[in-house]
Amino acid sequence: MQHPTSFLQRYESYKQAVEGALALCTPQSEPETLYAPMRYTLESGGKRVRPVLAMMACDAVGGNGMDALYAGIAVEILHNFTLIHDDIMDAAAVRRGNPTVHVKWNESAAILSGDGMIAIAYQTLLRSSDLKRLRELIDAMNIGILEVCEGQAFDLEFQDRASISIEEYFRMIEKKTAKMLELAVKVGGILGGGSGTQIEALCHYAKAAGIAFQVQDDWLDIAADGAKLGKTIGGDILEGKKTFLIIKALEQYDSLSAADRLLMDEFLAKRGLPAEQIPAMQSLFERNGIFAEARTTVERLTKEAHEAVDILPDGAGRTYLHEFATMLLERTH
Amino acid sequence: MQHPTSFLQRYESYKQAVEGALALCTPQSEPETLYAPMRYTLESGGKRVRPVLAMMACDAVGGNGMDALYAGIAVEILHNFTLIHDDIMDAAAVRRGNPTVHVKWNESAAILSGDGMIAIAYQTLLRSSDLKRLRELIDAMNIGILEVCEGQAFDLEFQDRASISIEEYFRMIEKKTAKMLELAVKVGGILGGGSGTQIEALCHYAKAAGIAFQVQDDWLDIAADGAKLGKTIGGDILEGKKTFLIIKALEQYDSLSAADRLLMDEFLAKRGLPAEQIPAMQSLFERNGIFAEARTTVERLTKEAHEAVDILPDGAGRTYLHEFATMLLERTH
Repeated sequence: MQHPTSFLQRYESYKQAVEGALALCTPQSEPETLYAPMRYTLESGGKRVRPVLAMMACDAVGGNGMDALYAGIAVEILHNFTLIHDDIMDAAAVRRGNPTVHVKWNESAAILSGDGMIAIAYQTLLRSSDLKRLRELIDAMNIGILEVCEGQAFDLEFQDRASISIEEYFRMIEKKTAKMLELAVKVGGILGGGSGTQIEALCHYAKAAGIAFQVQDDWLDIAADGAKLGKTIGGDILEGKKTFLIIKALEQYDSLSAADRLLMDEFLAKRGLPAEQIPAMQSLFERNGIFAEARTTVERLTKEAHEAVDILPDGAGRTYLHEFATMLLERTH
Repeated sequence: MQHPTSFLQRYESYKQAVEGALALCTPQSEPETLYAPMRYTLESGGKRVRPVLAMMACDAVGGNGMDALYAGIAVEILHNFTLIHDDIMDAAAVRRGNPTVHVKWNESAAILSGDGMIAIAYQTLLRSSDLKRLRELIDAMNIGILEVCEGQAFDLEFQDRASISIEEYFRMIEKKTAKMLELAVKVGGILGGGSGTQIEALCHYAKAAGIAFQVQDDWLDIAADGAKLGKTIGGDILEGKKTFLIIKALEQYDSLSAADRLLMDEFLAKRGLPAEQIPAMQSLFERNGIFAEARTTVERLTKEAHEAVDILPDGAGRTYLHEFATMLLERTH
C-alpha cells in the first residue's frame, strides 16, 4: 500500500532520532559478556516500530513526538530483552538473519544481558525531559513487562495442552504480541499530556492492531505468498504451533471430513507435521474457510483499531496512527 | 554474639511486617508456570536481611522504618530474582534445602519468573506511602539491578581466566554481593528523608559490610568450623572457585614452597581439586597466613562499616546498624 509522503517522512525522521539516541543509551562498558550482547541486539536494526509508535501516539494527543523519544526507546529495549530470553526458551538459533545471543555467546550471557536490559529500559525512561507523570510511566512499564512474561508463559503452557480455546489464544497474543505496542502508545500518550480517556483509546487501538498483526502473522506463515517474506512456508506447522488457524480448525473438528480429522489428529499427536504434508494442511484451511476467517478477523481488528482513535483530535497525528496500523500489516518486522 | 534485646525485638517485628506484606505482593494469578515459582521462592523464608536493613536504615536517618517496608520488600524480590537466574547459570540443584526453580519446574519457568519478579519489584516499590523522591528510588533500583548483573557477569568471566587481581575480585563482589545491601540502605535512607551525605554514608556502610560478609563466606567455606553451617567443607575448592583465599595465595605464588606451588597449579589446571586434597589446601592457607589475612580483612571492613555511619544522628537507629553489620557475619543466610 502507498502511504502519504508526510507519514513516511515523519516515520523516517522519528526512526533516525531513535537510532541516534539509542546508541547513547547502550553502555559501552565492562563486563564485555554483559554489554556486548546488548549492543549486538539493539544495533541489529529493525523498523523501530515501538518507539516510532510511542512518538506518533504522543503527537496524536496533541504533544510533541520528540518528548516521547526516550520512553519509546525504553519500550524498544524491553522488546529486545523479550526477544533474547524468548530465543533461549524457543531454542531459536537465528534472529533477523543473525545468530541469536545464546548461540553467539552462551546461555548465561543471554540471560544476564536480557536482565540488564530491563534495568536499562527504566534508566532510559528517566531520560525523558518531563517526568511529572513518572509514577504512571513506571506503572505502565511494570505492567507491560509482567504481562509480556505472562504471554510467553501461556504460550509455553499451550504447547503442552491438547486443546486451546480461541479466547485463550487471544488472551495469550494480547499479552505476548500486543502488550509492547500498547505500552508504546501508553507512554507516548502520557508524555503527550493525554487524558485518561485518550490513553484508553490509544491502548484499545494498539491492542486491536497488535492482535491483527499476530493473526496475520499466523496466516502468512502458511499462505502461499508467505514466500515473499523469505520465510519457510509452514514453519508453524513443522513446529506444531497452535496458531489461530489450527485453533479455528480444531473448533470445527466435528464437522471436518474424515481425512481432515485424521490430518488434525496427526498434527496434534506428532506435535507438528513434516514438510510434505504442508500442502494438505493448506488445502484443509482453504476448503474449510479458515483462511477466509483469518482475513476477516484481521480486517475487523484493523477497523476496530482505526475507530478506537476516532475520539482523538482530528489531525495529522490521528491520521498517522491510521497509517501505522495499516503499515503493521505490511510486514515483515 | 549476644545482641541487645531491643535490636532483636526490632529485627523480629520488622521481619514479621515483611512476611505479612510480602504475601500480598506475590500475585496469586495465572499462568501457574509464571507465578508458582515466584511464590515458591519468595515464601521459602530466609532472614529477610535486605528489607529489615532498609527499614533500619530508614530509622537511622530519623525516619519511621515502616515507611521503607515496601521498598525493602522490592529489594528482597530483586534479590530472589538474582538467586533464580544465578542458579540456572551455576547449574545449582539445591537452594535453601529445596530444589531450585529450574530443577523443580524447568529452565523456561525459571527465566520467566525471574524476569517477572523484576517488574513486581518496581510495582512493590510503588506501594510506598511517600513517593515524592520516586525518581531517586527508581534510579537506585535501576543501578542496583544493572550492577548485580555486572557482578554475575564478572564472576562468570573470572571462572575462565587464569589470573584475577584482588582489586578485580573486590569489584566483582562489591557488585554481586554488596550491591543489594547497598540498594536496601539507599531506598531506606531516601524514604527516611536522609540527606545526600547521610545516604552516601549508608551506602559506604553497606558496601563494607557486604564485602566483609563475602570474604568471610569464602573463608568459612574451607575453615574447619564451616561444618557447623551444615555445608560441605571446601565446596569452593571442589568447584574451582577463585575465592579471596585462592587469589591471595596466587598473589604470593612466587614465595610459596614448591609443594604449595604444585597444589595451586593443579587447582588451576583442573579447575578445582578432589575432596581428598582439601586438607592440603587448608594447610596451605594456614601456613601461609591466608586465613589470618581473611580474618584481618573481615575485621577491617567491619570496623569501616561501623565508622561509616558515625556521621548519622546518635541513637538507637545507628546502634541497630552496628548490630546489623555484626549479625551479618554470624550466618548463615
